[in-house]
Amino acid sequence: MEPGEAARPSPGRAVRALPPRLLLLPLLLGRGLQAAAAASSSGAAAEDSSAMEELATEKEAEESHRQDSVSLLTFILLLTLTILTIWLFKHGRVRFLHETGLAMIYGLIVGVILRYGTPATSGHDKSLSCTQEDRAFSTLLVNVSGKFFEYTLKGEISPGKINNVEQNDMLRKVTFDPEVFFNILLPPIIFHAGYSLKKRHFFRNLGSILAYAFLGTAVSCFIIGNLMYGVVKLMKIVGQLSDKFYYTDCLFFGAIISATDPVTVLAIFNELHADVDLYALLFGESVLNDAVAIVLSSSIVAYQPAGLNTHAFDAAAFFKSVGIFLGIFSGSFTMGAVTGVVTALVTKFTKLHCFPLLETALFFLMSWSTFLLAEACGFTGVVAVLFCGITQAHYTYNNLSVESRSRTKQLFEVLHFLAENFIFSYMGLALFTFQKHVFSPIFIIGAFVAIFLGRAAHIYPLSFFLNLGRRHKIGWNFQHMMMFSGLRGAMAFALAIRDTASYARQMMFTTTLLIVFFTVWIIGGGTTPMLSWLNIRVGVEEPSEEDRNEHCWQYFRVGVDPDQDPPPSNDSFQVLQGDGPDSARGNRTKQESAWIFRLWYSFDHNYLKPILTHSGPPLTTTLPTWCGLLARCLTSPQVYDNQEPLREEDSDFILTEGDLTLTYGDSTVTANGSSGSHTASTSLEGSRRTKSSSEEVLERDLGMGDQKVSSRGTRLVFPLEDNF
Amino acid sequence: MEPGEAARPSPGRAVRALPPRLLLLPLLLGRGLQAAAAASSSGAAAEDSSAMEELATEKEAEESHRQDSVSLLTFILLLTLTILTIWLFKHGRVRFLHETGLAMIYGLIVGVILRYGTPATSGHDKSLSCTQEDRAFSTLLVNVSGKFFEYTLKGEISPGKINNVEQNDMLRKVTFDPEVFFNILLPPIIFHAGYSLKKRHFFRNLGSILAYAFLGTAVSCFIIGNLMYGVVKLMKIVGQLSDKFYYTDCLFFGAIISATDPVTVLAIFNELHADVDLYALLFGESVLNDAVAIVLSSSIVAYQPAGLNTHAFDAAAFFKSVGIFLGIFSGSFTMGAVTGVVTALVTKFTKLHCFPLLETALFFLMSWSTFLLAEACGFTGVVAVLFCGITQAHYTYNNLSVESRSRTKQLFEVLHFLAENFIFSYMGLALFTFQKHVFSPIFIIGAFVAIFLGRAAHIYPLSFFLNLGRRHKIGWNFQHMMMFSGLRGAMAFALAIRDTASYARQMMFTTTLLIVFFTVWIIGGGTTPMLSWLNIRVGVEEPSEEDRNEHCWQYFRVGVDPDQDPPPSNDSFQVLQGDGPDSARGNRTKQESAWIFRLWYSFDHNYLKPILTHSGPPLTTTLPTWCGLLARCLTSPQVYDNQEPLREEDSDFILTEGDLTLTYGDSTVTANGSSGSHTASTSLEGSRRTKSSSEEVLERDLGMGDQKVSSRGTRLVFPLEDNF
Repeated sequence: MEPGEAARPSPGRAVRALPPRLLLLPLLLGRGLQAAAAASSSGAAAEDSSAMEELATEKEAEESHRQDSVSLLTFILLLTLTILTIWLFKHGRVRFLHETGLAMIYGLIVGVILRYGTPATSGHDKSLSCTQEDRAFSTLLVNVSGKFFEYTLKGEISPGKINNVEQNDMLRKVTFDPEVFFNILLPPIIFHAGYSLKKRHFFRNLGSILAYAFLGTAVSCFIIGNLMYGVVKLMKIVGQLSDKFYYTDCLFFGAIISATDPVTVLAIFNELHADVDLYALLFGESVLNDAVAIVLSSSIVAYQPAGLNTHAFDAAAFFKSVGIFLGIFSGSFTMGAVTGVVTALVTKFTKLHCFPLLETALFFLMSWSTFLLAEACGFTGVVAVLFCGITQAHYTYNNLSVESRSRTKQLFEVLHFLAENFIFSYMGLALFTFQKHVFSPIFIIGAFVAIFLGRAAHIYPLSFFLNLGRRHKIGWNFQHMMMFSGLRGAMAFALAIRDTASYARQMMFTTTLLIVFFTVWIIGGGTTPMLSWLNIRVGVEEPSEEDRNEHCWQYFRVGVDPDQDPPPSNDSFQVLQGDGPDSARGNRTKQESAWIFRLWYSFDHNYLKPILTHSGPPLTTTLPTWCGLLARCLTSPQVYDNQEPLREEDSDFILTEGDLTLTYGDSTVTANGSSGSHTASTSLEGSRRTKSSSEEVLERDLGMGDQKVSSRGTRLVFPLEDNF
Repeated sequence: MEPGEAARPSPGRAVRALPPRLLLLPLLLGRGLQAAAAASSSGAAAEDSSAMEELATEKEAEESHRQDSVSLLTFILLLTLTILTIWLFKHGRVRFLHETGLAMIYGLIVGVILRYGTPATSGHDKSLSCTQEDRAFSTLLVNVSGKFFEYTLKGEISPGKINNVEQNDMLRKVTFDPEVFFNILLPPIIFHAGYSLKKRHFFRNLGSILAYAFLGTAVSCFIIGNLMYGVVKLMKIVGQLSDKFYYTDCLFFGAIISATDPVTVLAIFNELHADVDLYALLFGESVLNDAVAIVLSSSIVAYQPAGLNTHAFDAAAFFKSVGIFLGIFSGSFTMGAVTGVVTALVTKFTKLHCFPLLETALFFLMSWSTFLLAEACGFTGVVAVLFCGITQAHYTYNNLSVESRSRTKQLFEVLHFLAENFIFSYMGLALFTFQKHVFSPIFIIGAFVAIFLGRAAHIYPLSFFLNLGRRHKIGWNFQHMMMFSGLRGAMAFALAIRDTASYARQMMFTTTLLIVFFTVWIIGGGTTPMLSWLNIRVGVEEPSEEDRNEHCWQYFRVGVDPDQDPPPSNDSFQVLQGDGPDSARGNRTKQESAWIFRLWYSFDHNYLKPILTHSGPPLTTTLPTWCGLLARCLTSPQVYDNQEPLREEDSDFILTEGDLTLTYGDSTVTANGSSGSHTASTSLEGSRRTKSSSEEVLERDLGMGDQKVSSRGTRLVFPLEDNF
């Protein structure tokens, strides 16, 4: 507990203090005019007596720029250290600590050094007490002894805090604008989650995933909110609460803390080749509940009952909040889906796939524009980006050239990796450098109990109801594992740091930080024992002694991408060639899915796929005849030669018993497609005239030389490409 | 000419006006507290009567955020349009307009629309006239009717301009901080240039390239500066000059305009497979003279004669400037080289190459840290990044895994592509949206003549002297082509926009913009005719009719990467296997290089390569015996099994007649290595016990199955990987 912070006098109204201040990434951008002015001062002739003064300003700007560089270097050093230690851990096959946990530890250490090791220097603040009009302007021109300086508004400061503005320059430098998390770091993480979603397993568990993500998060939010309200009441009674803490605040806490992020668990699942359905459930839930949590929290914030006596229940305001939830969610969803569809159409109807660089750049720009478009329309960019990622993976990905597929995957993977580790190392740092912590032991203990109960009330009842409808039941061990995997991570942190103005929010932020720490460290470390204790099937492949000595083979599937299939056995090649049994089975089991998914499936297969990609049946056969012309325009010429059923999509909804050998067909295609069809596109030039989409070429290639493909075995070298 | 701008009254001292204001990229970061405050205001209970007021502030912040998003969307739309049009052009094999020229045209169109199509809205500025102390503070606390707001210093504004601050919100939004160019957009462009430098051809023309870059740029700067001083004198006589324009300003203009950027020409060279030596000369010169121009311009800025009577020649100040030039240049060089070497050591002594993602992330972070390190030490980050790129390509690249090689290349290629096109489309936009243009016809015409003469005085005499020492002479047609290829691009623009405070600088900026436009459009369009007129050998490969109809084959080598070798003929595989003739030839011709390069070459080959990479002779054989222990520690175990001479580096300095078939050996290795050794690392697991570096494995692979490799023919699918 930071002395002097929790005990400081609380002003009557909710203080809107200055949130931790920016300048980590923005420094490169934001140093702007100061430096430019400095350059200009050195550039323009210093011809009058103000030269010395200018020189001083210039020096100061230069000094500030240097400090900015140093603080960024600190973070880069942190990440570099993390990377090297991760390597050591992977090298030694240490599994109890994930890279994110490591990043936090390093951040923590550097935070301690910065907090207690650097001298407090005064900021160059100047208080101006000119009374003026009743509102603040975004730009201010100040006349300083004849010269005019421009200032921009940074925010309001509570009167009690004026002398409390961070005094330490270095701490100020490493503390950065919370919006950076939302606008810079989260989008690549979330987009990558959507883009690397394993379609097959995601879709075949879609119903359950949606239930966990929507109902589950709502239940969890409500339960945690209510429990925390009880805790807050208790705190009031024992006199531990020094400021206001409303019911809506509790619900808000419930919403932000309901965003699970089982990054550690998934990495271990992946490494140990644990059950794919469990993996899909956990991953799908965590991806979607991030979106739900964002929208839920902003709906709760928007809950403002009429009249001045707020924080009482108001049905109108409640329904307005529900409406806002639905509006923002569907708006963001639509925005993301639309940009994804536009990208799919563009990549389909141009021959852009001949230029992987252009294609990748276009893909990147379109995906980014989703974020901006949603923000410009008042929706949530992060949520839009998630659905854009899913749409891109489902449609656009099929139109991309083989090289662009790997390029886009790799690009977003690197961005995701850097952003995620950055956030986690920042979290470690923030525990000591953040200046407004409110540690309340009762609240913290209450929160741990509440998230445990909230998770339990979310997983077990829902699983029970889902099992009524599922053919492939979610077993008790799976339910316990899901219960156990309720880690909190980047999203909870980003939501919590977004607003730390009021006392309640500061307490929430501190508690969230601690919850993230403990869940990542303890649950992350306990995953492997838990898996064996719960008897969940894992399929570790131990490398031979020879491999271990000399090659990288043993590492290849370790934690590099938390969204991989276990490597397909070689039998799956066989399935590919004799495509029959799989798709027959697909057709049979498809019938057993819920009607809503069947409807969507056939719509997707008959209309969307053919319109947006080069695959699927020709539209001329699926659309009514009066749409003939339109159908002919929209159908790509390749499709006519390609009327065999879609290998990949036919089995999206199969609820099999998880027979790996048979169902991994499509991931194998892509895995080998990444390098296999290189060969095809050059060596088969002469022979392929009727078929030209890379999938088909690949298929031929596979058919032509089985031994060639299996000897290539690219899945070991391109471990990141078999996600689809 | 913009009325009211050039004619405005000039204050006595060089005004330090507000440079065009930021908020393009920074918006995502910088919108920061305003939005956070807004969120907080909606989050915290609006319990007192200030709720309405808060709501207004919130609305305003939201509106501002929306505008930010829209302005960024404008740029994304521009880039997307550019990409699609480039595709159309490539599709139609249009060569007269390069993508950068296209980006400028689209920027121009959008600029016109923004300038004349949007209504002028007032900025929310507020002038405060409180006289206070004699200096401006970086942070200001303003008391607005009882509430405190924090403002940060943006810069000084000249008194005459207070009412002249951009009035149009949209124009303000799309005009962004010049430092963004230097700190965000240039580094990836320059790093990519260094990283994709074709080592072989670069090093074999190193002497000439250094001469052109250093001597040439200095000569060009001096000649242009003097000619422009004459033009300025003339303008003074005819009364066209309304403000001061010193000799140092002219020299500064000479420095910034001496940075050539033949991006268009190189793209066409690459497409037409023009002569590789000419390509290397042009590319090498343009890469290095960017660095020279930056450092030269900051040295000229630093030229401040003692006393108040500036702008007279002062020997002490002159030598100080020379000292600054040498100091900054060598400091930045060292910084870049050191981080490159550190990265090489880290990648050599860890098994990080087993995790391409970690490796790529580390590579990215280390390269970025070069920039920050140099900036933190007061050197030039952009220059450091260039040499870091060259070092990374020369050493680290050899240690990277095959996948990381393609990942890092592709990552920086995408960044480079986006940044470059962004700059060019911004240039188009700036012609209309920049508010302080000073169009002076005399100056502009004079500048065109001066750059022509400057280029001539740089190319022809230098080529003459170089030819005295070169075995492989630079022919007249090459000299004419180099003369012709003096385009100006991103670097000249970034240097010019960095400081547009004074009248002289504004005139320079406008002129630079026009020079970039005309050189990119006209010279870019005239390259193909010029090549044929000058009889420079090109080797266009026309695709067969079949390929043209159905595949992308005909595009693959078109302009995707301006630094490619022509595709090696299949004979080069033979060279690889029978390594003899090439290296023998290398040893013979190496003797003919200048002694300084021979010295460097053997030092590099005997010590640096073995220390920093897995290749080269073991240090135990090259170092004196008393260093035995050290040598054993530094030499990687692989090297002992690998004592055959370095295939790749042996021919770095060959001054052959450019026999492609024989000398393209090494690029073929890498080209096929990118996918070839995937195979090797899995299929050869059993057989390789003694050798494990990917090169060797590859070599084996090549040796084992020649037909396999040639049927794979990855160079067509991975056109971006054969650069080294």
